[in-house]
Amino acid sequence: MQPRLQIVTPDFAQHPLDAEGLRSRVDKAVDDHLAHQADVLDQVGEDLAPLMDALADLLRGGKRLRPAFCYWGWRGAGGADDQPIVTVAASLELFQAAALIHDDVMDASDSRRGRPSLHRQVSALHRRHGWLGSPEDFGVAGAILAGDLCLSWCDEMYAGSGLPPADLLRGRAVFDRMRTELMCGQYLDMLESAQSSTTVERARHVILYKSAKYSVAQPLLLGGTLAGAGADLLSTYDSYGRALGEAFQLRDDVLGVFGDPSTTGKPAGDDLREGKRTVLVALTLERCSPAEAAQVRAGLGDPRLGADGVEALREVMVSSGALAEVERMIASLSATASAALAGVPEPARTVLGDLVLAATARTG
Amino acid sequence: MQPRLQIVTPDFAQHPLDAEGLRSRVDKAVDDHLAHQADVLDQVGEDLAPLMDALADLLRGGKRLRPAFCYWGWRGAGGADDQPIVTVAASLELFQAAALIHDDVMDASDSRRGRPSLHRQVSALHRRHGWLGSPEDFGVAGAILAGDLCLSWCDEMYAGSGLPPADLLRGRAVFDRMRTELMCGQYLDMLESAQSSTTVERARHVILYKSAKYSVAQPLLLGGTLAGAGADLLSTYDSYGRALGEAFQLRDDVLGVFGDPSTTGKPAGDDLREGKRTVLVALTLERCSPAEAAQVRAGLGDPRLGADGVEALREVMVSSGALAEVERMIASLSATASAALAGVPEPARTVLGDLVLAATARTG
Repeated sequence: MQPRLQIVTPDFAQHPLDAEGLRSRVDKAVDDHLAHQADVLDQVGEDLAPLMDALADLLRGGKRLRPAFCYWGWRGAGGADDQPIVTVAASLELFQAAALIHDDVMDASDSRRGRPSLHRQVSALHRRHGWLGSPEDFGVAGAILAGDLCLSWCDEMYAGSGLPPADLLRGRAVFDRMRTELMCGQYLDMLESAQSSTTVERARHVILYKSAKYSVAQPLLLGGTLAGAGADLLSTYDSYGRALGEAFQLRDDVLGVFGDPSTTGKPAGDDLREGKRTVLVALTLERCSPAEAAQVRAGLGDPRLGADGVEALREVMVSSGALAEVERMIASLSATASAALAGVPEPARTVLGDLVLAATARTG
Repeated sequence: MQPRLQIVTPDFAQHPLDAEGLRSRVDKAVDDHLAHQADVLDQVGEDLAPLMDALADLLRGGKRLRPAFCYWGWRGAGGADDQPIVTVAASLELFQAAALIHDDVMDASDSRRGRPSLHRQVSALHRRHGWLGSPEDFGVAGAILAGDLCLSWCDEMYAGSGLPPADLLRGRAVFDRMRTELMCGQYLDMLESAQSSTTVERARHVILYKSAKYSVAQPLLLGGTLAGAGADLLSTYDSYGRALGEAFQLRDDVLGVFGDPSTTGKPAGDDLREGKRTVLVALTLERCSPAEAAQVRAGLGDPRLGADGVEALREVMVSSGALAEVERMIASLSATASAALAGVPEPARTVLGDLVLAATARTG
């Protein structure tokens, strides 16, 4: 069936992720760094080429949203439009790749960005060559190492960006905490599923660490801190970032259930089969009947949940009013984020305003 | 039976790992950093405490060998005995912890440093609480995140050590390559097992990246580079480090088959059941009879290999002369390492000389 989700995507004269040509500049910074690492891997041994190819392939995808927040946080604080901040911004894509690779292992996800997940690609390599042992175990091990490489490379790009070392050291307060908090947020997320937690409050706490701070607030604060922003501007960034970050994750949760696989790059209902404890799920359980709640609990986390099962859960999410409530939350948080921008100088203010829409009115 | 392995451990007036009180100073630097991170985790949520405890527990173990090479590489290049280099040296223990945690997941190892491996501890937590889902999957996911935390913290300690930023940037050429090469070496290692490779040449290539450079040469070069060592001294360090690093790994391989579980902290024969393709295995296959080779191939990588099977493989390793040959290689490499030290100033020269013995004449 057609998901009951109508998102009116904004018609930007220029997409805010492309302002100042940023997206292609980030792409180039990532490509240049990967080319350097491909040389290093090649010196170690040609057997590493397939792993490098899979990594490069994964890194070609991605919206470059976190780099945009980092870059515009810098510009909003008066930083000049030069190469080092683009390299720092691009380093966040390496971190994001590491998080996705390891997350897909932990969730046993088959696909990512419309292609097989990295551990599945490494498994397929093993199977194709008919090597000894379990292809699945080999794929998991290869993906753990690939994620570790990306974590290390993220840090290497940051430190080697060309920004003055004293500035980089100041930025580390944000950079380090971002990394630690994301991993903590992911642990809390899996704990929520394991404990079958269903309160909206706990789901929002997980979102804060797993997504809101990481996807928007911390990249923005990193850019601002690197440029020497004062306390007032950092406080503005924090307000905008937390609100928009939560809205961004709520949109993700809605797309995880109602999204079109051709734009999300993930099979329909994957989040339900994985048993993700989202705000949408928590609100549904709060508002539906006991019989419906039993149905939702039974379907959530069932890896064999089929198309009919997915559809039945969607129905409850709609009829309970939970979907509408989440959409109201997204709208309200977006308004809060936009309002917070009042004191930010142009052109950062306009672009960050447009990024509110880009992050929340999206279909993939 | 009593393993046929007699290592005459040297009787140091002061153990070289304790020179300048280094071991306890490294312990303290690790503890201080973990206390800082425990505060960060506590702010995110109290549910993270068991993960933090398991990490702290793992990090209390360890010989602190890599920090010693880093520190003495610094001292040998004229660096002063102060706190920042001890912090940099200690950061290598965080990296080593990450490598061990992820390695144990990849090898499905049950124990580490005489205790359950980290993923087993997290599984046990899940089981104790009767949470939903598979305790094994939960343990693996928790350990992946715990290793990721250690990778990030290693970098945080390095950058926040207090050494001048310009020096730290220079040291990154070594620090970054060490991290990338170790991960590549681990991938090649699993590829060797999957491809059932048995040549001595390939086994030595894996050792070079997975262990020789990482365990000795790169920590030493890192310390030297941070202190501004010239090309001659760095070349000396490289010769010493590669030779000793290979000897160190060969000793590890011998202990993995013949070691006493009470000193290695791992069950007897674990390396055989994991199917590790070591130089010892490759030499055995080169030198034994076809019938014995078939027996070795059948036993290697068999997770159900019992005490009798382990003993039978040990017999072939001894009777083929492979064990004796590995011992000869260790002695020869140790002599090469010691001879390389001629130009290193005291007291680094004496301590690095003693570390040759400490790294090769050990039982655990």
